[in-house]
Amino acid sequence: MEIVKTLFVQASKAYNSNISHQLLCLDLVKYCLSKLETEAKYQFFGNFAGRAPVPYSVFQGTGNSRPVRSDLFFEKEAPFFEAYSRLVNRLQTGQSPWSTADETEANRVIYTAVMSVACCFDIWQRNSRKTPGTFFEVFIAGLLKLAFPLATLSKHIPLLDILEDSESGRPALASELLDEDEKGSVATDIVIGTSSRRGGVVLPLKITTRERIVQPFAHQRILDSAFGRGVYQSLIVCISETQLDEKSRSVKQVCVPGTIKLYQKYLAPIGGLYYCDVPQRYAQDDVAKVLPVRSLGQLFADIRLALEKLNATKSAEEAGPGL
Amino acid sequence: MEIVKTLFVQASKAYNSNISHQLLCLDLVKYCLSKLETEAKYQFFGNFAGRAPVPYSVFQGTGNSRPVRSDLFFEKEAPFFEAYSRLVNRLQTGQSPWSTADETEANRVIYTAVMSVACCFDIWQRNSRKTPGTFFEVFIAGLLKLAFPLATLSKHIPLLDILEDSESGRPALASELLDEDEKGSVATDIVIGTSSRRGGVVLPLKITTRERIVQPFAHQRILDSAFGRGVYQSLIVCISETQLDEKSRSVKQVCVPGTIKLYQKYLAPIGGLYYCDVPQRYAQDDVAKVLPVRSLGQLFADIRLALEKLNATKSAEEAGPGL
Repeated sequence: MEIVKTLFVQASKAYNSNISHQLLCLDLVKYCLSKLETEAKYQFFGNFAGRAPVPYSVFQGTGNSRPVRSDLFFEKEAPFFEAYSRLVNRLQTGQSPWSTADETEANRVIYTAVMSVACCFDIWQRNSRKTPGTFFEVFIAGLLKLAFPLATLSKHIPLLDILEDSESGRPALASELLDEDEKGSVATDIVIGTSSRRGGVVLPLKITTRERIVQPFAHQRILDSAFGRGVYQSLIVCISETQLDEKSRSVKQVCVPGTIKLYQKYLAPIGGLYYCDVPQRYAQDDVAKVLPVRSLGQLFADIRLALEKLNATKSAEEAGPGL
Repeated sequence: MEIVKTLFVQASKAYNSNISHQLLCLDLVKYCLSKLETEAKYQFFGNFAGRAPVPYSVFQGTGNSRPVRSDLFFEKEAPFFEAYSRLVNRLQTGQSPWSTADETEANRVIYTAVMSVACCFDIWQRNSRKTPGTFFEVFIAGLLKLAFPLATLSKHIPLLDILEDSESGRPALASELLDEDEKGSVATDIVIGTSSRRGGVVLPLKITTRERIVQPFAHQRILDSAFGRGVYQSLIVCISETQLDEKSRSVKQVCVPGTIKLYQKYLAPIGGLYYCDVPQRYAQDDVAKVLPVRSLGQLFADIRLALEKLNATKSAEEAGPGL
């Protein structure tokens, strides 16, 4: 795992320094795929007992990896890289619209890249719980740079800055009373916008949401309150909501449709919820009626639309803050 | 610890069955105080290096308990019960206003009760992380019943019900697609109101807030959106924000003033933040300017005021939902 960790650090350091990092991500994925192929056993684990059963496999080392959908995962390096090249080509040429096959392929590429790294950490470095999520962010950021070369890509909006804008006179703190405001919990993930005006598409990235689902809705509410509605739009980007049940040798899709509807209606509306492995429950009409739930293959076209829409509305600066 | 656990289960079961449970809580506190006195060592641990240093002690068994402020903690059973009796008397007679000494005493009683149980779990049952928080809720509920015998006390508002009110036609779910909406994350803690009308004082109870501080603000926002402002008012009720630093033999007060100001201003305003051990940072003017931070001894009078204010405003039913 030392090599995996080194490759990961290289990719994320490059990303943080705004150096082109997508090739470093690919080095890591390539190494992880080959490590899984040679050092782990890949086999069927169990079904998700949905309306149509969904088969899941796991990589086995000293323990099981998280569940993997074989129909979305490229086990072999060669087909992964071929699909990746086609995806990059589509992103760079701005091809539009994509066929369903194009969307499926994009979805598989992202799923494979993120899951190959995550499964290595599951099996060989279980205590690094946050690393797969960070890689997810770094990898998606790389694709976004290819797809939207003219857009500005910010790593996050530090929401505390909203406050400080309007609060010129902060008290001089005694050094022993240091504030411990954790940037993470009050900063969004990636934001794509245009340099000419305030606003953009906010992309909260979470491999699975679990009890942290309140965060992106709360952030959207804060952005709406501070800048007015329609200036920032959030699209929540996830991989899956699966959980292994070792006892019953089955896989659960952990869904909280009521919570999502509640937040969407009474906290702040977000623009969509994206998954590589869309949970069946979220694909049902009652959820889709409240907010769009789509595959990650559809994300890039939807970001493009959202950016066009945001640009078409009045400039946030003209309209002034909507307090 | 078997006796501690049995006494705790008795108290919380009685509470959940709406049987008078305050005496069962006292049995537990009494047992915990005597167990700590006879089986643990109580000694000075270190200071919080604030503007005025705050000394903290710990109970020591196989490990250290959380930090305890000796000036707020009754080590001996007798003075605790004397102070408790006086508090109950003040609550039941509706004495008003309280002197500063009365408030300090109430604060000490609650601190001692909650910390005696929490420290026993810290030392002898570390894996039961949630139990001290549950006892905090159960104990405060008992005091509220004494103080507001005519008010209705609900264990929580299940926020998902707001949604279901307006959603008559839920889809018939295939049994395999069970929703896993966790009631906890979308339900408030204790609510005090009057039976005659909708609305009341919501009391989110957390021994320490940490990263869960977003929850009560998000809940307040949902209540404001669903019922209009001023129908429900939240008062966040905590014990302390302390953290042991074993290396430096000191105690930290973990504070996120920026986050709180941000949520207060842009998510939803809450009525106040209450602590037994008020963190120095939160007592500073810049925070107090944005939301009142007070001691738990002041909570009961403030709830009374808030209830009167809510009753004085137009009935929520008359005004209709403020969507």
